[in-house]
Amino acid sequence: MSVACIFCDIVAGKAEASPVFEDEHVMAFMDIRPMTPGHLLVIPRQHATDLSELPPELAGPLFGTAQKMAAALRKSALKPAGINLFLADGVAAGQEVFHVHLHVLPRNTGDGFGLRGSFSWPHRMSLDAHAAQIRSACEFL
Amino acid sequence: MSVACIFCDIVAGKAEASPVFEDEHVMAFMDIRPMTPGHLLVIPRQHATDLSELPPELAGPLFGTAQKMAAALRKSALKPAGINLFLADGVAAGQEVFHVHLHVLPRNTGDGFGLRGSFSWPHRMSLDAHAAQIRSACEFL
Ligand SMILES: [Zn+2]
Ligand SMILES: [Zn+2]
Repeated sequence: MSVACIFCDIVAGKAEASPVFEDEHVMAFMDIRPMTPGHLLVIPRQHATDLSELPPELAGPLFGTAQKMAAALRKSALKPAGINLFLADGVAAGQEVFHVHLHVLPRNTGDGFGLRGSFSWPHRMSLDAHAAQIRSACEFL
Repeated sequence: MSVACIFCDIVAGKAEASPVFEDEHVMAFMDIRPMTPGHLLVIPRQHATDLSELPPELAGPLFGTAQKMAAALRKSALKPAGINLFLADGVAAGQEVFHVHLHVLPRNTGDGFGLRGSFSWPHRMSLDAHAAQIRSACEFL
């Protein structure tokens, strides 16, 4: 547990939450500031500030639970037409609570949620150059 | 393999791509319409139209590879300050290629990328009601 982490407090039963699912590795509960009705979060029970601290063996439980929550949402009375998964890693990416959390957002056409930004169409040479830079960095993981 | 699936063609080496990583379960390659420089996709090698078709045992390889790619991007010459993960499941959620893919987006403050939409602040009673609806649906998975 980390000092003053609201999600660790939820895991410990010390803070209020609307829980949906839990097992030995993860918990899922409603986001208190939903961007669409039914918006929930999946978190590891164990504190991890960001993806770099998340034990790789929790990747499966975290994403697998999001997949289950997506299936449950689709079968629920909320009946969304689609689902988005979203994760913010770092302040520059919009992370606001520093305990890893994967957003599961029920979607319907015209619900106002989506991505902000624009596409570019780089030449293959530029894509290949980025791929080479990332592959080089993989060697140092 | 699915008929006329561009990602299956990439897995089979029949379509051009800028590959970053592959193992027996997944592939990672550059998105050809990046929303930020270094934007890449992680896909299962096996065709799965959406999350409902993705074998649960691929959740770990898919998310674990995105986690690795996030680490590689941070160590790469691209030096992003943050990372977003994004997945669109279904047309209503913005899915455009019908082979599961997890977006990995390098982020920097002021890069113009982000979420569109607004938060709401529902009462706890309303959150609890949504949680109950989703928990009920979990029983039918
Ligand atoms: Zn915590
Ligand atoms: Zn395919």
